[in-house]
Amino acid sequence: MTRVAVVGGGQLARMMAPAATAMGVTLRVLVESEAASAALAAHETVVGLPTDPAAITELLAEPRPDVITWEHEHIPSEVFELAEAAAVPAHPAAFALEFARDKISMRERLDLLGLPMPSWRRVETEGDVEDFLAVHGGVGVLKTSMGGYDGKGVRIVRSPAEADEWLAAAADSGPRLLIEEKVRYDREVALQVARRPSGEMRFWPLVESVQRDGVCAEVIAPAPGASAALQAEAERIGRLIATELDVTGVLAVEMFEVHGRLLVNELAMRPHNSGHWSIEGSTTSQFEQHLRAVLDWPLGDTAVLAPVTVMANVLGGARLHLETAWPGATDAGVKVHLYGKEVRAGRKVGHVTVMGNDVDGLRKRAAAAATWIKDGGAS
Amino acid sequence: MTRVAVVGGGQLARMMAPAATAMGVTLRVLVESEAASAALAAHETVVGLPTDPAAITELLAEPRPDVITWEHEHIPSEVFELAEAAAVPAHPAAFALEFARDKISMRERLDLLGLPMPSWRRVETEGDVEDFLAVHGGVGVLKTSMGGYDGKGVRIVRSPAEADEWLAAAADSGPRLLIEEKVRYDREVALQVARRPSGEMRFWPLVESVQRDGVCAEVIAPAPGASAALQAEAERIGRLIATELDVTGVLAVEMFEVHGRLLVNELAMRPHNSGHWSIEGSTTSQFEQHLRAVLDWPLGDTAVLAPVTVMANVLGGARLHLETAWPGATDAGVKVHLYGKEVRAGRKVGHVTVMGNDVDGLRKRAAAAATWIKDGGAS
Repeated sequence: MTRVAVVGGGQLARMMAPAATAMGVTLRVLVESEAASAALAAHETVVGLPTDPAAITELLAEPRPDVITWEHEHIPSEVFELAEAAAVPAHPAAFALEFARDKISMRERLDLLGLPMPSWRRVETEGDVEDFLAVHGGVGVLKTSMGGYDGKGVRIVRSPAEADEWLAAAADSGPRLLIEEKVRYDREVALQVARRPSGEMRFWPLVESVQRDGVCAEVIAPAPGASAALQAEAERIGRLIATELDVTGVLAVEMFEVHGRLLVNELAMRPHNSGHWSIEGSTTSQFEQHLRAVLDWPLGDTAVLAPVTVMANVLGGARLHLETAWPGATDAGVKVHLYGKEVRAGRKVGHVTVMGNDVDGLRKRAAAAATWIKDGGAS
Repeated sequence: MTRVAVVGGGQLARMMAPAATAMGVTLRVLVESEAASAALAAHETVVGLPTDPAAITELLAEPRPDVITWEHEHIPSEVFELAEAAAVPAHPAAFALEFARDKISMRERLDLLGLPMPSWRRVETEGDVEDFLAVHGGVGVLKTSMGGYDGKGVRIVRSPAEADEWLAAAADSGPRLLIEEKVRYDREVALQVARRPSGEMRFWPLVESVQRDGVCAEVIAPAPGASAALQAEAERIGRLIATELDVTGVLAVEMFEVHGRLLVNELAMRPHNSGHWSIEGSTTSQFEQHLRAVLDWPLGDTAVLAPVTVMANVLGGARLHLETAWPGATDAGVKVHLYGKEVRAGRKVGHVTVMGNDVDGLRKRAAAAATWIKDGGAS
């Protein structure tokens, strides 16, 4: 019996379970509590934190997993040491993961590779910020090198003083800081790439990611109007990153599109929100592909099954429980994914997907379904 | 939290789990052992047999399921009584299930409804068999009224003497017997129907089912060349059966196609092998739809996602374990479903699905993948 161990009990691990079930793979998940999103869906669960060696030891225990992987980037080095001691391959490896975890490491490495990125620099003092703002129109995007997500760890600054608090925290052994140019992009796009340890790679079509308040609200696959040249450039970037950073599993490359050019924004080395559309919209979902990739199995076809697939996130709304109203009620063609998470305002608690031909119509349907769920069908 | 209890630990319950996970539904399954196909995938398991009242009581215990359903027809009446006592709705109900469990009851009821069927009669003596053979060209299909599946409980007879053994068993309180005309059909087809307790119904397209040695080997969806008139006739039959027999959940109507006419062969009131193609091939799979239907939730769209979907069963072959070779190796577009069952020769241990445009090419690809898995990639 093939067995995959996963660190992290969120919706990304949860959504690996159906793919694992179909392939006859046993999924053993380290969850922070029995109430975690992945706990119910996982085939085997270990309750504990990635920082707890006893929990990791249990995760690696007999019957021994064939591979260990992650649904987030915050994996302590001890986990890699324990996996190596247990002779369980770890994918993606610590070397690759560092570039998804630490934005300064990522920017430095991508600079060496000559990949297109927004201008950026590491900042430690007000003077560093001042210098950067002076040559970038007086505005920049200040980021913590580690720990940011969904708009956290990111702030727009227009004067060095606005960076003071974070600079002080960084000096006081807080996360290192970088500043980036505020790109006036046409849109945000993302490319999902899968790569096996033995080298095989597959790409899904470039998708458009629509953000609201710093959070991904909607994904349109493929990105409307994307030319073959743009897809080729995205794949060139994705291939170089996956190969040179030795990424294994699924990689999401988030990019800005600016007048037909692509600039790399962020990397995620795991299934990612921008790839959820692939569950229904592609022959092989990013969750199935991630498992195949980390197992070093042949990768699946990434063809799309409809001209357009639209995914919309469901954010926590006014009602406490999603289960009080069936969310598919208004539209028989919408596919609903609920994560079994406690509902808090603004938290991603599910997503919906709809497939067809007409981008605008599909976006309206997806948004309507997501809103309906958010408001518990109250409208 | 919505919770569905399922009696039966085979692959049909197993394949309900991914749909339940996506919809945020907790699936509690009664399995005969921890090694059952559904045990690993189910969110909650109770180990026991449907004939064990203690196990059924545990299945119905707090947190109480919203509904109880089945993945097979052999549900003792005590189960319905316990469900009623616990105020848990049971779908499909005992009234409907009887017609899927007992072929004589089904044939009698369908005769009353005027539905097209092969000629048939109940037989208790050699004389009954002799009379039937005399007016049906000297050949008939002898069946046990209950307990037959995959070619078991079915035998071709050309003389009353060939029925002797079964007649004696029937007289000795064994299963009742019926004999049916041996239909010279053009092909076997099946219609999947879903019906909610409150009445909403949806139909998938008619599919062709290719049998080998009395076992379904392959399903082609939609049935190639099926006219709109044939689909309409299939839906008329399906609608009448679902309504008049008060079927809730998913119903499979297996039929013979003879010169453009349809004759009802068998009924299954649950997800069925002839509907597995819908996991990838339709907007809503039969497994998701069954859960929605028994919960009396709005049903999902049954549109197809490709011109042709072909499903091929994987039968147990020479090798003991499927896991020793990754079954998607030869064809990146084939979707693999393994049931986690112990491999025995001829036993259904999984299936593969492939979608596209060309029926012949897809059938070859599906058959090649199924054979590859069966032989453990040895060829």
